[in-house]
Amino acid sequence: MNQIISATASDIRDMRVRGAGRIARAGATALADYAASYEGRSLEEFRNDLRKASEVILGSRPTAVSLWNGVHYTLRGISSAETFEAARDSVIANGKEFVTNSEQAVQRIARIGAKRIKDGDVLMTHCNSSVAIGVILEAVRQGKDIKVYATESRPWRQGILTVNDLSKGGVDTTLIIDSAVRSVMSRVDRVFVGADTITSSGSLINKIGTSQVAMAANEARAEVNVCSETYKFSPKTMFGDTVTIEERDISEVVRPGEIPENVRVFNPVFDTTPAKYIDNIITEVGIMSPGAVYGVMVKQFGESIFDLE
Amino acid sequence: MNQIISATASDIRDMRVRGAGRIARAGATALADYAASYEGRSLEEFRNDLRKASEVILGSRPTAVSLWNGVHYTLRGISSAETFEAARDSVIANGKEFVTNSEQAVQRIARIGAKRIKDGDVLMTHCNSSVAIGVILEAVRQGKDIKVYATESRPWRQGILTVNDLSKGGVDTTLIIDSAVRSVMSRVDRVFVGADTITSSGSLINKIGTSQVAMAANEARAEVNVCSETYKFSPKTMFGDTVTIEERDISEVVRPGEIPENVRVFNPVFDTTPAKYIDNIITEVGIMSPGAVYGVMVKQFGESIFDLE
Amino acid sequence: MNQIISATASDIRDMRVRGAGRIARAGATALADYAASYEGRSLEEFRNDLRKASEVILGSRPTAVSLWNGVHYTLRGISSAETFEAARDSVIANGKEFVTNSEQAVQRIARIGAKRIKDGDVLMTHCNSSVAIGVILEAVRQGKDIKVYATESRPWRQGILTVNDLSKGGVDTTLIIDSAVRSVMSRVDRVFVGADTITSSGSLINKIGTSQVAMAANEARAEVNVCSETYKFSPKTMFGDTVTIEERDISEVVRPGEIPENVRVFNPVFDTTPAKYIDNIITEVGIMSPGAVYGVMVKQFGESIFDLE
Amino acid sequence: MNQIISATASDIRDMRVRGAGRIARAGATALADYAASYEGRSLEEFRNDLRKASEVILGSRPTAVSLWNGVHYTLRGISSAETFEAARDSVIANGKEFVTNSEQAVQRIARIGAKRIKDGDVLMTHCNSSVAIGVILEAVRQGKDIKVYATESRPWRQGILTVNDLSKGGVDTTLIIDSAVRSVMSRVDRVFVGADTITSSGSLINKIGTSQVAMAANEARAEVNVCSETYKFSPKTMFGDTVTIEERDISEVVRPGEIPENVRVFNPVFDTTPAKYIDNIITEVGIMSPGAVYGVMVKQFGESIFDLE
Amino acid sequence: MNQIISATASDIRDMRVRGAGRIARAGATALADYAASYEGRSLEEFRNDLRKASEVILGSRPTAVSLWNGVHYTLRGISSAETFEAARDSVIANGKEFVTNSEQAVQRIARIGAKRIKDGDVLMTHCNSSVAIGVILEAVRQGKDIKVYATESRPWRQGILTVNDLSKGGVDTTLIIDSAVRSVMSRVDRVFVGADTITSSGSLINKIGTSQVAMAANEARAEVNVCSETYKFSPKTMFGDTVTIEERDISEVVRPGEIPENVRVFNPVFDTTPAKYIDNIITEVGIMSPGAVYGVMVKQFGESIFDLE
Amino acid sequence: MNQIISATASDIRDMRVRGAGRIARAGATALADYAASYEGRSLEEFRNDLRKASEVILGSRPTAVSLWNGVHYTLRGISSAETFEAARDSVIANGKEFVTNSEQAVQRIARIGAKRIKDGDVLMTHCNSSVAIGVILEAVRQGKDIKVYATESRPWRQGILTVNDLSKGGVDTTLIIDSAVRSVMSRVDRVFVGADTITSSGSLINKIGTSQVAMAANEARAEVNVCSETYKFSPKTMFGDTVTIEERDISEVVRPGEIPENVRVFNPVFDTTPAKYIDNIITEVGIMSPGAVYGVMVKQFGESIFDLE
Repeated sequence: MNQIISATASDIRDMRVRGAGRIARAGATALADYAASYEGRSLEEFRNDLRKASEVILGSRPTAVSLWNGVHYTLRGISSAETFEAARDSVIANGKEFVTNSEQAVQRIARIGAKRIKDGDVLMTHCNSSVAIGVILEAVRQGKDIKVYATESRPWRQGILTVNDLSKGGVDTTLIIDSAVRSVMSRVDRVFVGADTITSSGSLINKIGTSQVAMAANEARAEVNVCSETYKFSPKTMFGDTVTIEERDISEVVRPGEIPENVRVFNPVFDTTPAKYIDNIITEVGIMSPGAVYGVMVKQFGESIFDLE
Repeated sequence: MNQIISATASDIRDMRVRGAGRIARAGATALADYAASYEGRSLEEFRNDLRKASEVILGSRPTAVSLWNGVHYTLRGISSAETFEAARDSVIANGKEFVTNSEQAVQRIARIGAKRIKDGDVLMTHCNSSVAIGVILEAVRQGKDIKVYATESRPWRQGILTVNDLSKGGVDTTLIIDSAVRSVMSRVDRVFVGADTITSSGSLINKIGTSQVAMAANEARAEVNVCSETYKFSPKTMFGDTVTIEERDISEVVRPGEIPENVRVFNPVFDTTPAKYIDNIITEVGIMSPGAVYGVMVKQFGESIFDLE
Repeated sequence: MNQIISATASDIRDMRVRGAGRIARAGATALADYAASYEGRSLEEFRNDLRKASEVILGSRPTAVSLWNGVHYTLRGISSAETFEAARDSVIANGKEFVTNSEQAVQRIARIGAKRIKDGDVLMTHCNSSVAIGVILEAVRQGKDIKVYATESRPWRQGILTVNDLSKGGVDTTLIIDSAVRSVMSRVDRVFVGADTITSSGSLINKIGTSQVAMAANEARAEVNVCSETYKFSPKTMFGDTVTIEERDISEVVRPGEIPENVRVFNPVFDTTPAKYIDNIITEVGIMSPGAVYGVMVKQFGESIFDLE
Repeated sequence: MNQIISATASDIRDMRVRGAGRIARAGATALADYAASYEGRSLEEFRNDLRKASEVILGSRPTAVSLWNGVHYTLRGISSAETFEAARDSVIANGKEFVTNSEQAVQRIARIGAKRIKDGDVLMTHCNSSVAIGVILEAVRQGKDIKVYATESRPWRQGILTVNDLSKGGVDTTLIIDSAVRSVMSRVDRVFVGADTITSSGSLINKIGTSQVAMAANEARAEVNVCSETYKFSPKTMFGDTVTIEERDISEVVRPGEIPENVRVFNPVFDTTPAKYIDNIITEVGIMSPGAVYGVMVKQFGESIFDLE
Repeated sequence: MNQIISATASDIRDMRVRGAGRIARAGATALADYAASYEGRSLEEFRNDLRKASEVILGSRPTAVSLWNGVHYTLRGISSAETFEAARDSVIANGKEFVTNSEQAVQRIARIGAKRIKDGDVLMTHCNSSVAIGVILEAVRQGKDIKVYATESRPWRQGILTVNDLSKGGVDTTLIIDSAVRSVMSRVDRVFVGADTITSSGSLINKIGTSQVAMAANEARAEVNVCSETYKFSPKTMFGDTVTIEERDISEVVRPGEIPENVRVFNPVFDTTPAKYIDNIITEVGIMSPGAVYGVMVKQFGESIFDLE
Repeated sequence: MNQIISATASDIRDMRVRGAGRIARAGATALADYAASYEGRSLEEFRNDLRKASEVILGSRPTAVSLWNGVHYTLRGISSAETFEAARDSVIANGKEFVTNSEQAVQRIARIGAKRIKDGDVLMTHCNSSVAIGVILEAVRQGKDIKVYATESRPWRQGILTVNDLSKGGVDTTLIIDSAVRSVMSRVDRVFVGADTITSSGSLINKIGTSQVAMAANEARAEVNVCSETYKFSPKTMFGDTVTIEERDISEVVRPGEIPENVRVFNPVFDTTPAKYIDNIITEVGIMSPGAVYGVMVKQFGESIFDLE
């Protein structure tokens, strides 16, 4: 296998490259570089080689929606290209475009989301989403006087990271346990959470507990905002792929010997928030409702999306 | 102050007597014993002395609804008694009756509640309510094949106690974190929780997170059962007293230095579950809806309840 | 066994006496007659004999709530009676009272319910409840111009009976299939249904499909009225007894050979309508909300109800 | 007709006595005075004369629930009285009791309701209910820092009276138009409204727009409190009497010539708030849920309530 | 009229060609064949003749959305074509494309939908939708262990067909009456139904009772999946055309003489399920939410859709 | 500044041109005319001059979404144009297209919306939306027998205008106060309201009270239709711009001296109706759900919309 491809794949596999955005950008770059340095001139061979290269990249982290999107974004148009040159140039341009878009997406979401926050707002966030936190910090930077409730987010307690992030940005922050979400929700104006994956029918897959926060927000007429780069939209869900919700080890929840052996621990990483609980999905291409996700997927992927089935 | 009264008060204050039921029974017994050994014969003086004794008892744990109920149950009828003897006998009889009722209440609730559980049911419980656990254990004792999800119940993690209790009783038990409540609720048939206090309009004050469990149960058409001895019904709420929701120390949630100093921790002990999320309140005087609580309070207290305002 | 008792029991068992009201009155009458003709004078023996007689009566139709109520209504007070005469007279008086109350209840409910119907109302009824139909016919008799949708009520299609009953009374009647309930509900102002059983927490057990009608009514802001004599209130549900929902034979739904042998048919007779979908329970002691049922049960039964557990 | 009775009746009819409470107390007093000065000694005649006197009083304002309650409260027990003296004394005592209860009720509700208000609360009230305003003023008197939104309450704009009342009491008050209720509700913690009538199944009949306020409160998880003396509970609704919702003249809404002649104006005085939108009914006998109303009606009226049908 | 067109039209009219898919493909094929054999060369005449031919085809079954779609899909582009040849080729290509798409759509939906079904799922289906049944059979073919409730679907009882179809495919199937939908829904994980028509705002028109199933599913948090080829999307609804809900004959519901003559029978064929009750619309171009339907209509029809008004 | 531009700007600023549609058309026409008469030939200069001209136009009414849309619609394509001629021609064509579309939109919406109204329908409208009224008048023109409730719409009472408009068109019209919306909603089949602004996630900003009407309609299963030309869709909301809800003067609500000086009046002009309460958005490009708005914005604006951030 080509040197560029295999190096990137192993960097991803061995966690030298981490984080949804960075992984995706590495994959897209590797394919674009591969195309730029490709030595043949046969369209047919180029397509085959590129497919193989893609599989290697994807295999380095098979469940990462962002990587899948980075790779497929880079490849789009190669089926319809009529010459090798057109295909190659398309891959190079796509790869660069993806990287640029991705880099700009987080800042852009921060600016867009921050505009929705009003002076005096009380916010809630769950887990430790850098995009959601970016929105809040941007609002504070603009001088808005806000207050934030951050959930502990057991079992890993990423809420500790979040309150540190927010505190550094000078945000008036209060930590609560996950069970206190409904209790404080009556004081909350807006919720900001991140996304692991967004499906074609507008559901959100995100850190366990997100759906509970969203349900409580709806009950109290607080606004639910999901902050998500569009490379977290999963085109494969258009064709029925369900997002496997990883279950993690019991040791994250209990210490050895703390509970009897015949007691099980169910420790899912994510849950699914139905579209009806989401007011706004804030992306780098603007704010939309869950009903708009399908159209954006098709527009961004182009017609080749229909070959995914 | 009388020896019986002051000994009991200090036992309660110093936690030698603990638990809602035990505290209440101790208070009732002390007043009955005090009446039995009372040496005067003046009705007026007896009433005054008894009132003072009650205040001492109540002052040993001012926020415990059960103690308040035990004391007031024991005293009822003394205003309308026409002779010293009638008043004294009434206090003695009331005190004994309260103790007997209270002792029988938990077992009775277990038997009543267990009948509502069907073979094959999946249950959920929150925190560590001995009454709710009693119901589940009784159902298992009857040979019903059930499965129980128990929440961790941060910050004290009483869920660890609960899974131990259930495991000892041979129950098929799974521990989940508090954020996973909605995630597993779609598999749950019935929820059983305990009560700290029940108000005159049928709201439930209970361990933080209970209202979230009940909300998620309602969203998924799972039945919500509150297991509560009637001495957790708070007559003072009839006259507007709100139940103060205690906030506890930050150290229960974070370790020293774990979060920046300017980050607050909001750590409430209880939350309020609205009546509309409760299907059944299971008491020792039978299963009722929240709408029936007012009537039961008046019936159990008698007319003197209206003097509480 | 006494002649009066055994004759009545066999009349009920062999369906010579049928219908919730008639069965209950027969049971109450038999016990009253038995008491009137009782030959001993020992309170203890009388109580024992009466208990045995009750068991025979109850055994003739073990699942009929109305019979159970008729018998227990008749027996109330005998535990606290201090003399044989007091006990005997109480049974005789109770039995008569039950019969009178029961006979008057249906007419009284008709009069009460009819007052709630306004000129121009569109109503819906389900199955073939004589009490609900009585309300509608009374309203028409009063000259109100109303229109009624009646459901077919598969599998027995009691809707055919209902439209015949209503048509005889001159009511403008339209028959619909059970699947059309939601479709026409947007034109309906009020729903009137009967009751098989009402539980202590205010749920309604009634003909399969009732809960669906009530849900659709709630979605469209149509008023849900349950017409029920109070002897359909089931005190045993206060203590956890669940109402067994009978499943009936496949032959009621499909003809022999119509479906493959490995296909099952689930044919439940009743379903449960939660209290939250019920606006009014119209009884012979007035209109109440589901929250009031517990209190009425206790009032009507007296303290002996607490011995049922 | 007796002088006392006819004078009171004409005072009420000619509006010299006004307001729900005053009217009811006048009626009760007149009957008690009439009984005290009654000259015959025949029980039968006394009952008949009293009935006639009641009809005269009731006829002076046939739709006032409070008057009806005052009269019936005063008469209760006369059917079961066995001697003239017992009947007469009962009427006198009842009448006085009613007056005392009624006078104390408003203050008592103010004290009870005020306890439910927390420092920092934002409240909303609708129309101009002296009981609801009493609650708010009492809370301010206790030093609580609250803010109140008061609706204009077209067409009579009683909101102008309300903001004057609140302003005099030093309350931080904001007037809004009726259309702005949902718009500001997301900032509101609690709603306090009065009652014209409360039905036996716990519905509230009150100033037009109340049901809209309650619906918006429910959508935003704000608490809905109805402040109502129990003589606004209407026992006649137990037996199906519907509360006629008066329609008033077009001139209250438009000026002459302002709209074309063929345009109608529908100007109802009251609307009906369903029980499900009410969290607490605050009465002089304590806070209850709508489900408790039936039981309170029966308790306050005694058994004679069942003769109302 | 041309031979190809008139033959196809009469085949459809006389039911020799039946079923939404087959009808639509016949219409598209006829127009494509007509274009292929067209003898003139004038663009203008060709357009006119084609329009006439279309009207003949559409007139053979005026209410079939699928036929309307097949015809319009085939014609699209002819207005903007600049030469006769371009127009003719476009019609031929469109017609073939429609037929191919349509043939593949059902299988594709089966594969997509089956992926959403999990091992152990309990499903419900209503009426006899070949697309929905295809999804279920595909899931079983993949070895998933599922259980299906099928409704009887009065009055035609297509549920009998459904249980036969499912049974042949080896599915564990249970038949229920339509009134039992809510009763069993608490055990159901997912609902799969077909579509007669989908409107531009995402509502579903389908067999009477579908909206009731969807409402009950929402109440119990069961997922609602609509299986629909996109040629069941009705572009005319974009411009306000409402789908006429056919009422069928009384004889489908009652036997002659079974009900009095003055009793009406309302027998609608379809009902409307609002978008809010639909989680996923599963089409051959992927899974979408109701909010995406408008965009798909516009994309599939092209700009000419705006001329439909 | 150019004469055409400055004249139009001052016409708008000084209210000589009024109304959302007219303002927008004036702005688009001015820019097209400016382009047509532009004297230079440098693409770069043309772009700069056009931008300045746009700012002048926009500055004449900075909060009008329709003007903003008219201007941006006219300018689209100029960034990507490769020659001065292409840019100029594009501006001229865009301007004309906008004007034509805009002029046709209202009539087109009337025709589309009217089709959704059925004979016998009862409708409600709020405030005085010419588009919504146009729909109703068109339905009446088609001979449909309908009845309309129009709200008074305090504080300006535009309902008076509405009932005059409807009355002239021969519509059976009833005026109600704003507080009576929920009271009459149970008789209403469909609601038609206009739009001030529609956001990218499908929320509606419209006259204060609209959200209350929509909430009440949802509670009673009445259909909510928003009538809106697409130039009321606000692309800036895609990027977080919130619509500032203007607060107007206290004098619109109370007369001088009518309320104490320390009482505030909160008098917002608009409120926000969440997407979940909207069934149909009826536009000149067809009926859509709120979920489709984002896609329509992007389609109508073209790629330049993404530069708005």
